[in-house]
Amino acid sequence: MIQKLTDKIKKTGAPVVVGLDPMLDYIPGHITQKAYREYGETLEGAAEAVWQFNKEIVDNIYDLVPAVKPQIAMYEQFGIEGLKVFKKTLDYCREKGLLIIGDIKRGDIGSTSKAYAVGHLGKVQVGSKVHAGFDEDFATVNPYFGTDGVKPFIDVCKEEKKGIFILVKTSNPSSGEFQDRLADGRPLYEIVGEKVAEWGESYMGDSYSYVGAVVGATYPEMGKALRRIMPKAYILVPGYGAQGGKGADLVSFFNEDGLGAIVNSSRGIIAAYKQEKYAKYGEACFGEAARAAVEDMRDDITQALGR
Amino acid sequence: MIQKLTDKIKKTGAPVVVGLDPMLDYIPGHITQKAYREYGETLEGAAEAVWQFNKEIVDNIYDLVPAVKPQIAMYEQFGIEGLKVFKKTLDYCREKGLLIIGDIKRGDIGSTSKAYAVGHLGKVQVGSKVHAGFDEDFATVNPYFGTDGVKPFIDVCKEEKKGIFILVKTSNPSSGEFQDRLADGRPLYEIVGEKVAEWGESYMGDSYSYVGAVVGATYPEMGKALRRIMPKAYILVPGYGAQGGKGADLVSFFNEDGLGAIVNSSRGIIAAYKQEKYAKYGEACFGEAARAAVEDMRDDITQALGR
Repeated sequence: MIQKLTDKIKKTGAPVVVGLDPMLDYIPGHITQKAYREYGETLEGAAEAVWQFNKEIVDNIYDLVPAVKPQIAMYEQFGIEGLKVFKKTLDYCREKGLLIIGDIKRGDIGSTSKAYAVGHLGKVQVGSKVHAGFDEDFATVNPYFGTDGVKPFIDVCKEEKKGIFILVKTSNPSSGEFQDRLADGRPLYEIVGEKVAEWGESYMGDSYSYVGAVVGATYPEMGKALRRIMPKAYILVPGYGAQGGKGADLVSFFNEDGLGAIVNSSRGIIAAYKQEKYAKYGEACFGEAARAAVEDMRDDITQALGR
Repeated sequence: MIQKLTDKIKKTGAPVVVGLDPMLDYIPGHITQKAYREYGETLEGAAEAVWQFNKEIVDNIYDLVPAVKPQIAMYEQFGIEGLKVFKKTLDYCREKGLLIIGDIKRGDIGSTSKAYAVGHLGKVQVGSKVHAGFDEDFATVNPYFGTDGVKPFIDVCKEEKKGIFILVKTSNPSSGEFQDRLADGRPLYEIVGEKVAEWGESYMGDSYSYVGAVVGATYPEMGKALRRIMPKAYILVPGYGAQGGKGADLVSFFNEDGLGAIVNSSRGIIAAYKQEKYAKYGEACFGEAARAAVEDMRDDITQALGR
């Protein structure tokens, strides 16, 4: 799967992932109104609006990027109905040839992490049969529990040839509160980064590991240090665009081979039509605005990389 | 809600929470076979087995304990069908008068944590209406993102009069890998504990805060230190029983008032019938075995507390 990701990045020329994080207020009125007319102002109505919105976005970007990253919280907020659309979105994206990074940030004690890993990346045994619950290609994982919270994910990944991205340094303003604490003179995120490199050695693709990391675009200097600490890890980089990261900030997240990082933008793409820059598309053509925003983001990053 | 929890602990005399973490291999054959006959060896069949199992457990323990703690991963492993039964279980437990601690261990950047908080503890706005997605009373939260990953949970709790338990020192063997790292000479879990106390000050009940902590029974010495650091926080203590914790280890998690902690057991109760001690009940009477295990656990803890 990590090879497939690399191949698709090379083919599209876009180390870009589109975050499918549909807040209701990103969704144009004509879509929500139609959904509410059909299903009422219910959880089902909200889920239908999210689905129609996602479908239009995916139809407009699927040939430009290697992967999407649906943030499960944005679906979970609508309970079961939202999660049904999360699954429907995964299936649709796969049909369109996109790789799927489930942004689930799960992590727990061993037996519980195993259940999460099985549900999102693997297959669960039911009597004599096996079934996939959600079936993402990659998932994000929280490292707070240490090795025995992470290992079950790696075990399932090995069986399924799938991958994970472990939170190392997150993009939010207060991420430093615990992650930057100095332990033996070194920040915790570096210690976590070392563990990511160590865990990753046990599960290598051709040139990159199936065990990647999450490092926020908002912390480019730390990205530089972490790039050195985890040379074989793919870095999933959130925080571009709406959170403040720019193409020039991203160079240090990549390796010399121009690979090793994939940059996410959510709001900046899926709600592009709300920005002045893409206002000409209008609400009606929000999908085309998203497409234009992906093209601009791709060009911004490839230019910064000097390619 | 924290007052309600305290009142129910006093009323039942049991600072005990039953972890509803139904792995398929805990479920007696007569239940799985019946479910598979009706629904096949499918995700739906597995979910039906989990539901019938949970119902029998809840019917046998609801009058003995203040709360249950369903671990969402055990449902999520069966995809949408599993999550439907997670919700059905929550609703049934509420009907039976039990408080519900959703063991979800979510946590993310601010806007995403808000979506989780809304989905699990609050209500989501859909047009002019509001709806609850899952509607737990408490949820567990991962602190890795720092204040802006936690605050949205506290904000929603304030609106809804609900509570959270933040991971401080987890019960698993490798929890020390990051949590025990010394920063300025103090372990990270103490630094997180201090933050829990600080966050909790902003949202107090009569004598305890709505912001609690998770500290594993498997680390009683650390529990003692954390009890002092977070005097007003309820401590949710996993790791009793199957993970190795005993009543005598738990004393230091409680305050002088005999309150301030609630101890979870999952496997040790719901799969009690598999232990030699409760083998006399047999598979058929697994619910009664669970009831006996709850009574023994309550007595073990109250004896250790000298009450």
